[in-house]
Amino acid sequence: MAALARGCAVLGTGGGGDAHTGILIARQALSQYGPVPLVALGDLDPDGVLLPVGAIGAPSVSLEKLHAGHEIDGIRREVEHVTGRPVVGLMATEIGGTNGLLPVAWAARTGLPLVDADAIGRALPEVQMVSMHVVGRHPDLIVLADERLNVVVLRPTDGHWAEALARSVAVVFGGSAIMADYVMTVAEAEGAIIEGSVSLALSIGRAVEGADDAVAGLIAAVQGTKLIEGKVLDVERRTTGGFVRGSLVVEGSGDDSGRLLRIEIQNENLVALEDGEVLASVPDLISVVDAATGDAIANENIRYGQRVVAIASPSPAIWRTPAGLEIAGPRAFGYDFDFSPLEARHDINA
Amino acid sequence: MAALARGCAVLGTGGGGDAHTGILIARQALSQYGPVPLVALGDLDPDGVLLPVGAIGAPSVSLEKLHAGHEIDGIRREVEHVTGRPVVGLMATEIGGTNGLLPVAWAARTGLPLVDADAIGRALPEVQMVSMHVVGRHPDLIVLADERLNVVVLRPTDGHWAEALARSVAVVFGGSAIMADYVMTVAEAEGAIIEGSVSLALSIGRAVEGADDAVAGLIAAVQGTKLIEGKVLDVERRTTGGFVRGSLVVEGSGDDSGRLLRIEIQNENLVALEDGEVLASVPDLISVVDAATGDAIANENIRYGQRVVAIASPSPAIWRTPAGLEIAGPRAFGYDFDFSPLEARHDINA
Repeated sequence: MAALARGCAVLGTGGGGDAHTGILIARQALSQYGPVPLVALGDLDPDGVLLPVGAIGAPSVSLEKLHAGHEIDGIRREVEHVTGRPVVGLMATEIGGTNGLLPVAWAARTGLPLVDADAIGRALPEVQMVSMHVVGRHPDLIVLADERLNVVVLRPTDGHWAEALARSVAVVFGGSAIMADYVMTVAEAEGAIIEGSVSLALSIGRAVEGADDAVAGLIAAVQGTKLIEGKVLDVERRTTGGFVRGSLVVEGSGDDSGRLLRIEIQNENLVALEDGEVLASVPDLISVVDAATGDAIANENIRYGQRVVAIASPSPAIWRTPAGLEIAGPRAFGYDFDFSPLEARHDINA
Repeated sequence: MAALARGCAVLGTGGGGDAHTGILIARQALSQYGPVPLVALGDLDPDGVLLPVGAIGAPSVSLEKLHAGHEIDGIRREVEHVTGRPVVGLMATEIGGTNGLLPVAWAARTGLPLVDADAIGRALPEVQMVSMHVVGRHPDLIVLADERLNVVVLRPTDGHWAEALARSVAVVFGGSAIMADYVMTVAEAEGAIIEGSVSLALSIGRAVEGADDAVAGLIAAVQGTKLIEGKVLDVERRTTGGFVRGSLVVEGSGDDSGRLLRIEIQNENLVALEDGEVLASVPDLISVVDAATGDAIANENIRYGQRVVAIASPSPAIWRTPAGLEIAGPRAFGYDFDFSPLEARHDINA
């Protein structure tokens, strides 16, 4: 669990929720309900339902308003009622942040296997930013629940209406909700999800744990590059419209003295800028990690004065396709520039 | 239809949507699909599903963003899928305003009978302000749809969560949505709805049409009282949070010269005040009608200079019970005074 949490935090790119609360919740569920089998999609009954699950809302809210655990029971019951099929497995919708860890707790609670996969390969802030949307699947069924067991079923006409409706429901629920997104059968999930995501997060976590220099080990594990090493100089965060928006500034130290790196945020780190120049952008990953331990820091925990290294690493392949970039490239977030792959920027050396 | 529209407009107490658009939509549907049978609840299969239907949102929005008609098909399909039962009849959730007329159009379109009943006996602004809530029924199933056929199913824990969630969905849909509220079987509807509401609206409309003095005929038909006759001096309206809020002021003329009546609005007319004194309040009805024709004017159509009579009439009995007053009495709208029945106010003479 410690290795998984480390890996999920890095893939969270500042968002996806603080992995620390996720690990506490998952450990408690594992001790109460027993271990969770990690399976491949192909191990499950193709006619059964796969639930891609996670929390939606502003991560800052989830720090104080913890989920109850039983939301997953309400969601499972509603899905089985509406589809007339049994749920045969759970999957993290996004492997990043606490959203990669909460499904472990829910799998333990429900006795369902956890599929070694997710729908993003990192964390991304909006409901339609998932692999099912990239490959053209329709969001037939989305189910949200809160800790009071209010349950809402969405049958949106497309992914953008899914986002608008789900975000609004999460806000009514108090800023955060549990959601099963793009509910589908195991057969329908074939080719529409990203397999191996749990293993990836575990391997990142283990590489950090096994390295003499944690940050160097992390950079090697994610095949990434250091953007800057230094001190957090400024943080701005607003919780608005069901998102955390804002920016943080890192002031370089040592070899990076005199440099300033600005990272812009919508739940996740979207763009890293230096003197107006884009050093890295979505869908590539930008993670801010503790300079000593290599542990990624969720944006709600970023504080003035922290000694950090900002790291960038290449996006999962699906997000670099034309369809992927249309959904989660810089322009999808309102930026007026095209995506340029991290490894193609001549001013950055891995 | 003309008489029904007149009656619905009076019972709309300023809200429930402009009856003029409702009558156009209903007439068009009747000419396209044929007449609608008006039935009693007892005429329907007790095991079938009754759909209480209406529009939710800010009435001002519905003036420009008309409903498409096919929303009802999406709602019916979803309800039949979720409940596994056939829908056997429609009912207006609220008889007031266009919400008393749109169900005629939907009944024509779907070929379903219209039940001579509603759940309010007038118009009231919030989802939980219905007879099913007063008698303690749980909102097991609420379904909303928009003109794009986005469909949302709510399974809220109580009526207040129903209101918060449905209002938020209506706002995402653009400020207005079609909703089936407190979906239930015919058997479950027994004792939980207000029967005879369509007949009541028809009888009010016919009384106005048949009277030499339209306003006097109306006052007699609703067993009401004149609050003031005069000119609209001021109107304030804001569309906010899925409601229209504001106030209007009527300056007395003739016998009422020198008087000013202020009416406060949340979609519907809530309270009539003169010199800080309450002349009438929810759940009693306050309707502003054209001084010449006796036609009630929806709040989105109130304009400076209109010659009007403000009329008050007693609430349906259900809203004067302790449970009814708790849900839709003055305090439910944030006012700091108790309800006093219209006919008990010594300064008002019918």
